[in-house]
Amino acid sequence: MKIITTIAEVRAIVKEWRRAGETVGFVPTMGYLHEGHASLISRAVADNDHVVVSTFVNPTQFGPTEDLEAYPRDEARDAALCEGMGADIMFRPDPAEMYNNPKVSVVVNDMNEHLCGLSRPIHFHGVCTVVTKLFNIVTPDTAYFGEKDAQQLAIIRKMVQDLNMPLEIVGCPIVREADGLAKSSRNTYLSSTEREAALCLSRSIFYGQEQIKAGMRANDLEQAMKEIIAKEPLARIEYVKVVDALTMNDIEIIDRPVLIAVAVYIGKTRLIDNFSFDPKINTTPSKNK
Amino acid sequence: MKIITTIAEVRAIVKEWRRAGETVGFVPTMGYLHEGHASLISRAVADNDHVVVSTFVNPTQFGPTEDLEAYPRDEARDAALCEGMGADIMFRPDPAEMYNNPKVSVVVNDMNEHLCGLSRPIHFHGVCTVVTKLFNIVTPDTAYFGEKDAQQLAIIRKMVQDLNMPLEIVGCPIVREADGLAKSSRNTYLSSTEREAALCLSRSIFYGQEQIKAGMRANDLEQAMKEIIAKEPLARIEYVKVVDALTMNDIEIIDRPVLIAVAVYIGKTRLIDNFSFDPKINTTPSKNK
Repeated sequence: MKIITTIAEVRAIVKEWRRAGETVGFVPTMGYLHEGHASLISRAVADNDHVVVSTFVNPTQFGPTEDLEAYPRDEARDAALCEGMGADIMFRPDPAEMYNNPKVSVVVNDMNEHLCGLSRPIHFHGVCTVVTKLFNIVTPDTAYFGEKDAQQLAIIRKMVQDLNMPLEIVGCPIVREADGLAKSSRNTYLSSTEREAALCLSRSIFYGQEQIKAGMRANDLEQAMKEIIAKEPLARIEYVKVVDALTMNDIEIIDRPVLIAVAVYIGKTRLIDNFSFDPKINTTPSKNK
Repeated sequence: MKIITTIAEVRAIVKEWRRAGETVGFVPTMGYLHEGHASLISRAVADNDHVVVSTFVNPTQFGPTEDLEAYPRDEARDAALCEGMGADIMFRPDPAEMYNNPKVSVVVNDMNEHLCGLSRPIHFHGVCTVVTKLFNIVTPDTAYFGEKDAQQLAIIRKMVQDLNMPLEIVGCPIVREADGLAKSSRNTYLSSTEREAALCLSRSIFYGQEQIKAGMRANDLEQAMKEIIAKEPLARIEYVKVVDALTMNDIEIIDRPVLIAVAVYIGKTRLIDNFSFDPKINTTPSKNK
Protein backbone atom coordinates (compact mmCIF):
# COMPACT_ATOMS: atom_id res chain seq x y z
CA MET A 1 0.00 0.00 0.00
CA LYS A 2 1.12 3.53 -0.78
CA ILE A 3 0.68 6.54 1.49
CA ILE A 4 0.19 9.50 -0.87
CA THR A 5 0.00 13.20 -0.07
CA THR A 6 -0.30 14.78 -3.53
CA ILE A 7 -3.27 14.95 -5.86
CA ALA A 8 -1.08 14.42 -8.93
CA GLU A 9 0.26 11.12 -7.61
CA VAL A 10 -3.22 9.74 -6.88
CA ARG A 11 -4.37 10.75 -10.35
CA ALA A 12 -1.37 9.08 -12.02
CA ILE A 13 -1.96 5.75 -10.27
CA VAL A 14 -5.74 5.74 -10.84
CA LYS A 15 -5.11 6.54 -14.51
CA GLU A 16 -3.05 3.36 -14.84
CA TRP A 17 -5.81 1.32 -13.19
CA ARG A 18 -8.37 2.85 -15.56
CA ARG A 19 -6.18 2.09 -18.55
CA ALA A 20 -6.20 -1.57 -17.49
CA GLY A 21 -10.02 -1.49 -17.20
CA GLU A 22 -9.93 -2.06 -13.42
CA THR A 23 -12.55 -0.79 -10.95
CA VAL A 24 -11.87 1.64 -8.11
CA GLY A 25 -13.62 1.79 -4.74
CA PHE A 26 -13.24 4.83 -2.50
CA VAL A 27 -13.69 5.27 1.25
CA PRO A 28 -13.51 8.93 2.30
CA THR A 29 -12.77 9.28 6.05
CA MET A 30 -11.19 11.76 8.43
CA GLY A 31 -8.78 9.11 9.73
CA TYR A 32 -8.46 7.75 13.28
CA LEU A 33 -10.01 4.66 11.78
CA HIS A 34 -12.19 2.29 13.81
CA GLU A 35 -14.21 -0.83 13.08
CA GLY A 36 -16.91 1.28 11.42
CA HIS A 37 -14.41 2.51 8.83
CA ALA A 38 -12.98 -1.00 8.59
CA SER A 39 -16.39 -2.32 7.56
CA LEU A 40 -16.47 0.25 4.72
CA ILE A 41 -12.96 -0.63 3.57
CA SER A 42 -13.77 -4.33 3.77
CA ARG A 43 -16.84 -3.87 1.57
CA ALA A 44 -14.86 -1.71 -0.89
CA VAL A 45 -12.09 -4.33 -1.13
CA ALA A 46 -14.66 -7.06 -1.75
CA ASP A 47 -16.40 -5.05 -4.51
CA ASN A 48 -13.48 -3.52 -6.45
CA ASP A 49 -10.11 -4.25 -8.09
CA HIS A 50 -8.54 -1.34 -6.20
CA VAL A 51 -9.39 0.71 -3.11
CA VAL A 52 -8.40 4.23 -2.09
CA VAL A 53 -8.97 5.41 1.51
CA SER A 54 -8.64 9.12 2.25
CA THR A 55 -7.89 10.25 5.81
CA PHE A 56 -7.99 14.02 5.26
CA VAL A 57 -9.28 15.94 8.29
CA ASN A 58 -11.19 18.57 6.30
CA PRO A 59 -11.02 21.97 8.02
CA THR A 60 -13.91 23.49 6.04
CA GLN A 61 -16.52 21.22 7.64
CA PHE A 62 -15.67 22.33 11.18
CA GLY A 63 -17.28 25.44 12.64
CA PRO A 64 -15.12 28.03 14.42
CA THR A 65 -16.03 26.68 17.88
CA GLU A 66 -15.75 23.00 16.94
CA ASP A 67 -13.04 20.41 17.55
CA LEU A 68 -10.80 20.71 14.45
CA GLU A 69 -7.59 21.04 16.49
CA ALA A 70 -8.56 18.37 18.99
CA TYR A 71 -9.83 15.90 16.37
CA PRO A 72 -7.88 12.68 17.01
CA ARG A 73 -5.18 11.68 14.52
CA ASP A 74 -2.99 8.56 14.30
CA GLU A 75 -1.47 8.20 10.87
CA ALA A 76 0.65 5.14 11.61
CA ARG A 77 -2.29 3.19 13.00
CA ASP A 78 -4.52 4.30 10.10
CA ALA A 79 -1.90 3.14 7.58
CA ALA A 80 -1.53 -0.23 9.27
CA LEU A 81 -5.30 -0.73 9.26
CA CYS A 82 -5.67 0.28 5.59
CA GLU A 83 -2.80 -1.97 4.55
CA GLY A 84 -4.12 -4.85 6.62
CA MET A 85 -7.55 -4.55 5.03
CA GLY A 86 -6.11 -4.61 1.50
CA ALA A 87 -6.42 -0.96 0.44
CA ASP A 88 -4.05 0.17 -2.35
CA ILE A 89 -3.71 3.83 -1.43
CA MET A 90 -4.10 5.88 1.74
CA PHE A 91 -4.50 9.53 0.65
CA ARG A 92 -3.71 12.08 3.35
CA PRO A 93 -3.07 15.49 1.74
CA ASP A 94 -2.19 18.60 3.72
CA PRO A 95 -4.87 21.32 3.73
CA ALA A 96 -2.62 23.42 1.44
CA GLU A 97 -2.73 20.66 -1.18
CA MET A 98 -6.53 20.74 -1.10
CA TYR A 99 -7.35 24.45 -0.76
CA ASN A 100 -5.80 27.45 -2.53
CA ASN A 101 -7.92 30.56 -1.92
CA PRO A 102 -11.10 28.80 -3.08
CA LYS A 103 -13.97 30.75 -4.65
CA VAL A 104 -16.19 27.94 -5.95
CA SER A 105 -17.87 25.44 -3.65
CA VAL A 106 -20.73 22.95 -3.45
CA VAL A 107 -23.66 23.87 -1.24
CA VAL A 108 -26.84 22.12 -0.08
CA ASN A 109 -30.19 23.76 0.60
CA ASP A 110 -33.16 22.65 2.73
CA MET A 111 -31.72 19.22 3.61
CA ASN A 112 -29.15 20.91 5.87
CA GLU A 113 -31.79 22.90 7.75
CA HIS A 114 -32.60 19.96 10.00
CA LEU A 115 -30.85 17.74 12.56
CA CYS A 116 -27.07 18.36 12.69
CA GLY A 117 -27.32 21.21 10.16
CA LEU A 118 -29.11 23.36 12.73
CA SER A 119 -26.18 23.47 15.14
CA ARG A 120 -23.53 23.09 12.43
CA PRO A 121 -24.58 25.62 9.75
CA ILE A 122 -21.53 25.34 7.48
CA HIS A 123 -20.84 21.65 8.09
CA PHE A 124 -22.64 20.08 5.12
CA HIS A 125 -21.40 22.71 2.64
CA GLY A 126 -17.87 21.76 3.71
CA VAL A 127 -18.69 18.05 3.41
CA CYS A 128 -20.26 18.45 -0.07
CA THR A 129 -17.29 20.48 -1.31
CA VAL A 130 -14.55 18.20 -0.01
CA VAL A 131 -16.36 15.04 -1.13
CA THR A 132 -16.80 16.54 -4.62
CA LYS A 133 -13.08 17.35 -4.70
CA LEU A 134 -12.12 13.87 -3.52
CA PHE A 135 -14.47 12.24 -6.04
CA ASN A 136 -12.87 14.31 -8.82
CA ILE A 137 -9.36 13.35 -7.64
CA VAL A 138 -10.00 9.62 -7.13
CA THR A 139 -12.71 9.18 -9.85
CA PRO A 140 -14.08 6.03 -8.16
CA ASP A 141 -16.71 3.70 -9.57
CA THR A 142 -18.19 3.35 -6.10
CA ALA A 143 -17.83 5.30 -2.84
CA TYR A 144 -18.70 3.92 0.60
CA PHE A 145 -20.23 5.89 3.50
CA GLY A 146 -21.40 4.86 6.95
CA GLU A 147 -25.07 5.01 7.88
CA LYS A 148 -23.90 6.41 11.22
CA ASP A 149 -23.71 9.82 9.55
CA ALA A 150 -27.21 9.44 8.16
CA GLN A 151 -27.87 13.05 7.21
CA GLN A 152 -24.48 13.21 5.47
CA LEU A 153 -25.30 10.04 3.53
CA ALA A 154 -28.71 11.38 2.44
CA ILE A 155 -27.12 14.67 1.32
CA ILE A 156 -24.29 12.90 -0.55
CA ARG A 157 -26.83 10.71 -2.37
CA LYS A 158 -28.79 13.81 -3.38
CA MET A 159 -25.56 15.58 -4.43
CA VAL A 160 -24.59 12.70 -6.70
CA GLN A 161 -28.08 12.77 -8.24
CA ASP A 162 -28.31 16.57 -8.58
CA LEU A 163 -24.82 17.01 -10.04
CA ASN A 164 -24.95 13.80 -12.13
CA MET A 165 -21.75 12.51 -10.62
CA PRO A 166 -20.65 9.36 -12.46
CA LEU A 167 -20.39 6.95 -9.52
CA GLU A 168 -22.42 4.78 -7.15
CA ILE A 169 -22.91 5.49 -3.45
CA VAL A 170 -23.10 2.55 -1.04
CA GLY A 171 -24.23 3.04 2.56
CA CYS A 172 -22.97 0.58 5.18
CA PRO A 173 -24.62 -0.25 8.55
CA ILE A 174 -23.59 1.28 11.86
CA VAL A 175 -20.98 -0.76 13.71
CA ARG A 176 -21.39 -0.86 17.51
CA GLU A 177 -19.31 -1.72 20.54
CA ALA A 178 -20.34 -4.90 22.39
CA ASP A 179 -22.45 -2.80 24.79
CA GLY A 180 -24.23 -0.92 21.99
CA LEU A 181 -22.35 2.39 21.66
CA ALA A 182 -21.99 3.33 17.99
CA LYS A 183 -18.32 3.37 16.94
CA SER A 184 -17.01 6.92 16.46
CA SER A 185 -13.61 8.59 16.36
CA ARG A 186 -15.01 11.03 18.93
CA ASN A 187 -15.63 8.24 21.48
CA THR A 188 -11.97 8.71 22.35
CA TYR A 189 -12.87 12.03 24.01
CA LEU A 190 -14.99 10.25 26.66
CA SER A 191 -13.82 9.67 30.25
CA SER A 192 -14.77 6.28 31.67
CA THR A 193 -17.78 7.79 33.46
CA GLU A 194 -18.86 9.52 30.26
CA ARG A 195 -18.28 6.31 28.27
CA GLU A 196 -20.86 4.63 30.53
CA ALA A 197 -23.26 7.57 30.26
CA ALA A 198 -22.95 7.53 26.45
CA LEU A 199 -24.92 4.28 26.38
CA CYS A 200 -28.09 6.34 26.71
CA LEU A 201 -27.89 7.04 22.96
CA SER A 202 -27.96 3.43 21.82
CA ARG A 203 -30.43 2.58 24.59
CA SER A 204 -32.85 5.13 23.12
CA ILE A 205 -32.19 3.85 19.60
CA PHE A 206 -32.90 0.21 20.56
CA TYR A 207 -36.03 1.29 22.41
CA GLY A 208 -37.17 3.26 19.36
CA GLN A 209 -36.55 0.25 17.11
CA GLU A 210 -38.81 -1.85 19.36
CA GLN A 211 -41.58 0.74 19.63
CA ILE A 212 -41.78 2.18 16.12
CA LYS A 213 -44.65 1.18 13.91
CA ALA A 214 -46.43 2.49 10.84
CA GLY A 215 -49.02 5.17 11.58
CA MET A 216 -47.42 6.19 14.87
CA ARG A 217 -47.11 9.91 15.63
CA ALA A 218 -43.51 11.03 15.20
CA ASN A 219 -43.78 13.25 18.25
CA ASP A 220 -44.79 10.37 20.53
CA LEU A 221 -41.76 8.34 19.54
CA GLU A 222 -39.46 11.34 19.95
CA GLN A 223 -40.81 11.95 23.46
CA ALA A 224 -40.38 8.34 24.53
CA MET A 225 -36.80 8.24 23.27
CA LYS A 226 -36.01 11.59 24.92
CA GLU A 227 -37.21 10.29 28.28
CA ILE A 228 -34.70 7.45 28.12
CA ILE A 229 -31.84 9.81 27.42
CA ALA A 230 -33.03 12.32 30.03
CA LYS A 231 -32.54 9.69 32.77
CA GLU A 232 -28.79 10.05 32.24
CA PRO A 233 -27.53 13.07 34.27
CA LEU A 234 -24.41 13.62 32.12
CA ALA A 235 -26.48 13.77 28.90
CA ARG A 236 -27.71 16.97 27.26
CA ILE A 237 -30.03 16.37 24.30
CA GLU A 238 -29.41 18.42 21.14
CA TYR A 239 -32.17 16.68 19.19
CA VAL A 240 -34.21 13.49 18.98
CA LYS A 241 -36.05 13.62 15.66
CA VAL A 242 -38.10 11.51 13.29
CA VAL A 243 -37.73 12.96 9.78
CA ASP A 244 -38.48 12.02 6.17
CA ALA A 245 -35.55 9.79 5.17
CA LEU A 246 -35.07 11.44 1.78
CA THR A 247 -35.70 15.14 2.44
CA MET A 248 -34.87 15.38 6.18
CA ASN A 249 -38.14 17.32 6.57
CA ASP A 250 -40.20 17.05 9.76
CA ILE A 251 -43.16 14.68 9.58
CA GLU A 252 -46.18 14.14 11.83
CA ILE A 253 -47.15 10.56 11.07
CA ILE A 254 -44.80 7.69 10.26
CA ASP A 255 -46.24 6.94 6.82
CA ARG A 256 -43.09 6.82 4.65
CA PRO A 257 -39.41 5.85 5.00
CA VAL A 258 -38.08 7.75 8.01
CA LEU A 259 -34.79 8.46 9.72
CA ILE A 260 -34.82 8.53 13.52
CA ALA A 261 -31.75 10.44 14.62
CA VAL A 262 -30.35 11.61 17.95
CA ALA A 263 -27.57 14.04 18.85
CA VAL A 264 -26.55 14.22 22.50
CA TYR A 265 -23.75 15.92 24.37
CA ILE A 266 -22.04 13.74 26.97
CA GLY A 267 -20.02 16.34 28.83
CA LYS A 268 -18.32 18.32 26.07
CA THR A 269 -18.47 15.48 23.55
CA ARG A 270 -21.21 15.56 20.91
CA LEU A 271 -22.32 12.08 19.83
CA ILE A 272 -24.88 10.96 17.24
CA ASP A 273 -26.79 7.76 16.54
CA ASN A 274 -29.75 6.75 14.38
CA PHE A 275 -31.85 4.08 12.76
CA SER A 276 -34.05 3.95 9.67
CA PHE A 277 -37.57 2.58 9.32
CA ASP A 278 -39.69 1.95 6.26
CA PRO A 279 -43.38 1.32 7.08
CA LYS A 280 -43.80 -0.57 3.80
CA ILE A 281 -41.11 -3.06 4.71
CA ASN A 282 -42.14 -2.84 8.36
CA THR A 283 -39.07 -4.50 9.73
CA THR A 284 -36.54 -2.81 11.94
CA PRO A 285 -32.90 -3.13 10.91
CA SER A 286 -30.65 -5.50 12.81
CA LYS A 287 -28.92 -3.96 15.78
CA ASN A 288 -25.43 -5.04 14.63
CA LYS A 289 -24.62 -6.02 18.17
CA MET B 1 -24.03 12.48 -35.74
CA LYS B 2 -26.56 11.57 -33.08
CA ILE B 3 -29.04 13.98 -31.50
CA ILE B 4 -29.49 12.74 -27.93
CA THR B 5 -31.93 13.91 -25.26
CA THR B 6 -31.20 11.53 -22.37
CA ILE B 7 -28.29 11.49 -19.94
CA ALA B 8 -28.15 7.68 -19.97
CA GLU B 9 -27.63 7.54 -23.73
CA VAL B 10 -24.77 10.06 -23.66
CA ARG B 11 -23.11 8.12 -20.84
CA ALA B 12 -23.44 4.81 -22.73
CA ILE B 13 -21.77 6.16 -25.87
CA VAL B 14 -18.98 7.98 -24.03
CA LYS B 15 -18.32 4.80 -22.04
CA GLU B 16 -17.64 2.93 -25.29
CA TRP B 17 -15.24 5.65 -26.44
CA ARG B 18 -13.44 5.50 -23.11
CA ARG B 19 -13.17 1.74 -23.33
CA ALA B 20 -11.43 2.17 -26.69
CA GLY B 21 -9.01 4.70 -25.13
CA GLU B 22 -10.32 7.57 -27.26
CA THR B 23 -10.38 11.25 -26.24
CA VAL B 24 -13.52 13.35 -25.83
CA GLY B 25 -13.87 17.09 -26.44
CA PHE B 26 -16.90 18.97 -25.18
CA VAL B 27 -18.46 22.28 -26.27
CA PRO B 28 -21.25 23.42 -23.92
CA THR B 29 -23.54 25.96 -25.60
CA MET B 30 -27.12 27.17 -25.35
CA GLY B 31 -27.70 26.48 -29.05
CA TYR B 32 -28.63 28.93 -31.82
CA LEU B 33 -25.06 28.34 -32.94
CA HIS B 34 -23.04 30.96 -34.78
CA GLU B 35 -19.46 31.24 -36.06
CA GLY B 36 -18.20 31.79 -32.51
CA HIS B 37 -19.54 28.38 -31.47
CA ALA B 38 -18.29 26.93 -34.77
CA SER B 39 -14.75 28.01 -33.88
CA LEU B 40 -15.04 26.10 -30.58
CA ILE B 41 -16.40 22.98 -32.28
CA SER B 42 -13.71 23.21 -34.95
CA ARG B 43 -10.98 23.36 -32.30
CA ALA B 44 -12.57 20.47 -30.37
CA VAL B 45 -12.77 18.33 -33.52
CA ALA B 46 -9.12 19.06 -34.32
CA ASP B 47 -7.98 18.18 -30.77
CA ASN B 48 -10.04 15.05 -29.95
CA ASP B 49 -11.17 11.67 -31.24
CA HIS B 50 -14.80 12.54 -30.44
CA VAL B 51 -16.78 15.72 -29.82
CA VAL B 52 -19.99 16.34 -27.89
CA VAL B 53 -21.85 19.65 -28.30
CA SER B 54 -24.62 20.47 -25.82
CA THR B 55 -27.32 22.98 -26.81
CA PHE B 56 -29.28 23.02 -23.54
CA VAL B 57 -30.86 26.40 -22.79
CA ASN B 58 -30.30 26.28 -19.04
CA PRO B 59 -33.19 27.93 -17.16
CA THR B 60 -31.30 28.28 -13.86
CA GLN B 61 -28.85 30.83 -15.24
CA PHE B 62 -31.61 33.25 -16.27
CA GLY B 63 -33.00 35.74 -13.76
CA PRO B 64 -36.77 36.16 -13.40
CA THR B 65 -36.83 39.28 -15.62
CA GLU B 66 -34.41 37.93 -18.22
CA ASP B 67 -34.94 36.50 -21.70
CA LEU B 68 -35.32 32.75 -21.07
CA GLU B 69 -38.57 32.48 -23.07
CA ALA B 70 -37.36 34.73 -25.87
CA TYR B 71 -33.92 33.14 -26.13
CA PRO B 72 -33.55 32.11 -29.79
CA ARG B 73 -33.73 28.41 -30.65
CA ASP B 74 -33.22 26.55 -33.95
CA GLU B 75 -32.58 22.88 -33.37
CA ALA B 76 -32.49 21.86 -37.04
CA ARG B 77 -29.92 24.48 -37.94
CA ASP B 78 -27.84 23.67 -34.83
CA ALA B 79 -27.86 19.97 -35.75
CA ALA B 80 -26.81 20.70 -39.33
CA LEU B 81 -23.95 22.88 -38.12
CA CYS B 82 -22.74 20.32 -35.55
CA GLU B 83 -22.89 17.52 -38.09
CA GLY B 84 -21.15 19.62 -40.72
CA MET B 85 -18.33 20.46 -38.32
CA GLY B 86 -17.75 16.80 -37.44
CA ALA B 87 -19.30 16.56 -33.96
CA ASP B 88 -20.38 13.05 -32.86
CA ILE B 89 -23.22 13.99 -30.50
CA MET B 90 -25.52 16.97 -30.09
CA PHE B 91 -26.99 16.76 -26.57
CA ARG B 92 -30.19 18.73 -26.06
CA PRO B 93 -32.00 17.45 -22.94
CA ASP B 94 -35.30 18.83 -21.71
CA PRO B 95 -35.13 20.77 -18.42
CA ALA B 96 -36.94 17.85 -16.72
CA GLU B 97 -34.08 15.51 -17.71
CA MET B 98 -31.59 17.88 -16.06
CA TYR B 99 -33.42 19.05 -12.92
CA ASN B 100 -35.50 17.07 -10.43
CA ASN B 101 -36.18 19.18 -7.33
CA PRO B 102 -32.50 19.96 -6.87
CA LYS B 103 -31.06 20.68 -3.40
CA VAL B 104 -27.31 20.66 -4.12
CA SER B 105 -25.65 23.20 -6.39
CA VAL B 106 -22.31 24.79 -7.22
CA VAL B 107 -21.82 28.41 -6.22
CA VAL B 108 -19.13 31.03 -6.76
CA ASN B 109 -18.13 33.77 -4.32
CA ASP B 110 -16.35 37.10 -4.85
CA MET B 111 -15.65 36.55 -8.57
CA ASN B 112 -19.36 37.00 -9.33
CA GLU B 113 -19.57 40.29 -7.44
CA HIS B 114 -18.23 42.20 -10.41
CA LEU B 115 -19.15 42.93 -14.02
CA CYS B 116 -22.13 40.83 -15.21
CA GLY B 117 -22.61 39.31 -11.76
CA LEU B 118 -23.80 42.67 -10.39
CA SER B 119 -26.87 42.83 -12.63
CA ARG B 120 -27.27 39.03 -12.85
CA PRO B 121 -26.93 37.84 -9.23
CA ILE B 122 -27.87 34.18 -9.79
CA HIS B 123 -26.36 33.83 -13.26
CA PHE B 124 -22.95 32.38 -12.45
CA HIS B 125 -24.31 29.99 -9.80
CA GLY B 126 -26.58 28.60 -12.54
CA VAL B 127 -23.67 28.43 -14.98
CA CYS B 128 -21.36 26.67 -12.49
CA THR B 129 -24.07 24.14 -11.60
CA VAL B 130 -25.10 23.27 -15.14
CA VAL B 131 -21.51 23.10 -16.37
CA THR B 132 -20.62 20.78 -13.47
CA LYS B 133 -23.59 18.57 -14.38
CA LEU B 134 -22.66 18.53 -18.07
CA PHE B 135 -19.01 17.75 -17.25
CA ASN B 136 -20.15 14.83 -15.08
CA ILE B 137 -22.45 13.54 -17.84
CA VAL B 138 -19.99 13.91 -20.75
CA THR B 139 -16.74 13.35 -18.74
CA PRO B 140 -14.64 15.14 -21.38
CA ASP B 141 -10.85 15.34 -21.51
CA THR B 142 -11.13 18.94 -22.67
CA ALA B 143 -13.94 21.52 -22.71
CA TYR B 144 -13.98 24.60 -24.92
CA PHE B 145 -15.37 28.03 -23.98
CA GLY B 146 -15.43 31.35 -25.80
CA GLU B 147 -13.43 34.31 -24.52
CA LYS B 148 -16.47 36.42 -25.39
CA ASP B 149 -17.94 35.36 -22.02
CA ALA B 150 -14.75 36.32 -20.23
CA GLN B 151 -16.08 36.37 -16.67
CA GLN B 152 -17.72 32.98 -17.23
CA LEU B 153 -14.42 31.58 -18.55
CA ALA B 154 -12.47 32.92 -15.55
CA ILE B 155 -15.05 31.45 -13.14
CA ILE B 156 -15.10 28.07 -14.93
CA ARG B 157 -11.30 27.90 -14.80
CA LYS B 158 -11.41 28.62 -11.05
CA MET B 159 -14.19 26.06 -10.56
CA VAL B 160 -12.16 23.35 -12.28
CA GLN B 161 -9.18 24.25 -10.07
CA ASP B 162 -11.16 24.55 -6.80
CA LEU B 163 -13.16 21.34 -7.30
CA ASN B 164 -10.26 19.39 -8.88
CA MET B 165 -12.30 18.54 -11.94
CA PRO B 166 -10.36 16.06 -14.08
CA LEU B 167 -10.35 17.94 -17.38
CA GLU B 168 -8.68 20.80 -19.26
CA ILE B 169 -10.36 24.10 -20.12
CA VAL B 170 -9.49 25.78 -23.42
CA GLY B 171 -10.55 29.37 -24.11
CA CYS B 172 -11.03 30.41 -27.74
CA PRO B 173 -10.85 33.97 -29.17
CA ILE B 174 -13.88 36.15 -29.83
CA VAL B 175 -15.21 35.82 -33.38
CA ARG B 176 -16.50 39.05 -34.94
CA GLU B 177 -18.68 40.08 -37.84
CA ALA B 178 -16.85 41.81 -40.72
CA ASP B 179 -17.70 45.21 -39.22
CA GLY B 180 -16.42 44.30 -35.75
CA LEU B 181 -19.56 43.27 -33.79
CA ALA B 182 -18.80 40.28 -31.58
CA LYS B 183 -20.86 37.25 -32.64
CA SER B 184 -23.68 36.49 -30.20
CA SER B 185 -26.95 34.57 -30.30
CA ARG B 186 -28.55 37.70 -28.87
CA ASN B 187 -27.55 39.78 -31.95
CA THR B 188 -30.68 38.33 -33.52
CA TYR B 189 -32.76 40.56 -31.22
CA LEU B 190 -31.39 43.72 -32.90
CA SER B 191 -33.36 45.79 -35.43
CA SER B 192 -31.28 47.08 -38.34
CA THR B 193 -30.92 50.50 -36.64
CA GLU B 194 -29.87 48.79 -33.41
CA ARG B 195 -27.49 46.53 -35.31
CA GLU B 196 -25.68 49.65 -36.54
CA ALA B 197 -25.73 51.22 -33.07
CA ALA B 198 -24.28 48.01 -31.56
CA LEU B 199 -20.96 48.76 -33.26
CA CYS B 200 -20.20 51.17 -30.42
CA LEU B 201 -19.15 48.16 -28.30
CA SER B 202 -16.46 46.88 -30.65
CA ARG B 203 -15.46 50.46 -31.46
CA SER B 204 -14.74 51.06 -27.76
CA ILE B 205 -12.90 47.72 -27.53
CA PHE B 206 -10.65 48.48 -30.52
CA TYR B 207 -9.95 51.95 -29.14
CA GLY B 208 -9.09 50.45 -25.75
CA GLN B 209 -6.73 47.95 -27.41
CA GLU B 210 -4.91 50.85 -29.09
CA GLN B 211 -4.70 53.03 -25.98
CA ILE B 212 -3.93 50.55 -23.22
CA LYS B 213 -0.45 50.40 -21.81
CA ALA B 214 1.28 49.22 -18.65
CA GLY B 215 1.10 51.67 -15.76
CA MET B 216 -2.01 53.41 -17.10
CA ARG B 217 -4.78 54.24 -14.62
CA ALA B 218 -7.69 51.86 -15.10
CA ASN B 219 -10.15 54.68 -14.55
CA ASP B 220 -8.70 56.77 -17.39
CA LEU B 221 -9.11 53.93 -19.87
CA GLU B 222 -12.65 53.22 -18.66
CA GLN B 223 -13.60 56.87 -19.13
CA ALA B 224 -12.16 57.05 -22.63
CA MET B 225 -14.00 53.89 -23.69
CA LYS B 226 -17.24 55.10 -22.09
CA GLU B 227 -17.07 58.33 -24.07
CA ILE B 228 -16.99 56.40 -27.34
CA ILE B 229 -20.07 54.37 -26.37
CA ALA B 230 -21.87 57.44 -25.02
CA LYS B 231 -21.77 59.01 -28.51
CA GLU B 232 -24.32 56.39 -29.61
CA PRO B 233 -27.84 57.59 -28.64
CA LEU B 234 -29.37 54.07 -28.60
CA ALA B 235 -26.70 52.79 -26.20
CA ARG B 236 -27.10 52.59 -22.42
CA ILE B 237 -23.90 51.58 -20.61
CA GLU B 238 -24.21 48.94 -17.85
CA TYR B 239 -20.47 48.85 -17.20
CA VAL B 240 -17.09 49.53 -18.77
CA LYS B 241 -14.49 48.04 -16.43
CA VAL B 242 -10.84 47.16 -16.18
CA VAL B 243 -10.46 44.30 -13.65
CA ASP B 244 -7.85 41.81 -12.50
CA ALA B 245 -8.06 39.01 -15.09
CA LEU B 246 -7.91 36.22 -12.49
CA THR B 247 -9.99 37.53 -9.58
CA MET B 248 -12.30 40.02 -11.39
CA ASN B 249 -11.43 42.53 -8.63
CA ASP B 250 -11.24 46.26 -9.36
CA ILE B 251 -7.73 47.62 -9.88
CA GLU B 252 -6.33 51.14 -9.99
CA ILE B 253 -3.18 50.73 -12.08
CA ILE B 254 -2.69 48.35 -15.00
CA ASP B 255 0.19 46.41 -13.48
CA ARG B 256 -0.95 42.82 -13.96
CA PRO B 257 -2.99 40.76 -16.45
CA VAL B 258 -6.33 42.54 -16.85
CA LEU B 259 -9.70 42.00 -18.45
CA ILE B 260 -11.34 45.03 -20.05
CA ALA B 261 -15.05 44.28 -20.33
CA VAL B 262 -18.11 46.21 -21.46
CA ALA B 263 -21.85 45.54 -21.12
CA VAL B 264 -24.19 47.83 -23.00
CA TYR B 265 -27.91 47.83 -23.67
CA ILE B 266 -28.85 48.61 -27.28
CA GLY B 267 -32.58 49.16 -26.90
CA LYS B 268 -33.73 46.18 -24.85
CA THR B 269 -30.84 43.95 -25.92
CA ARG B 270 -27.93 43.52 -23.52
CA LEU B 271 -24.62 42.94 -25.33
CA ILE B 272 -21.11 42.29 -23.99
CA ASP B 273 -17.60 42.51 -25.41
CA ASN B 274 -14.07 42.48 -23.99
CA PHE B 275 -10.36 42.13 -24.49
CA SER B 276 -7.48 41.01 -22.30
CA PHE B 277 -4.12 42.67 -21.73
CA ASP B 278 -1.00 41.48 -19.96
CA PRO B 279 1.53 44.26 -19.24
CA LYS B 280 4.35 41.70 -19.11
CA ILE B 281 3.62 40.53 -22.64
CA ASN B 282 2.64 44.06 -23.60
CA THR B 283 0.94 43.11 -26.82
CA THR B 284 -2.74 43.51 -27.53
CA PRO B 285 -4.55 40.48 -28.87
CA SER B 286 -5.44 40.33 -32.54
CA LYS B 287 -8.79 41.81 -33.43
CA ASN B 288 -9.95 38.65 -35.24
CA LYS B 289 -11.33 40.79 -38.03
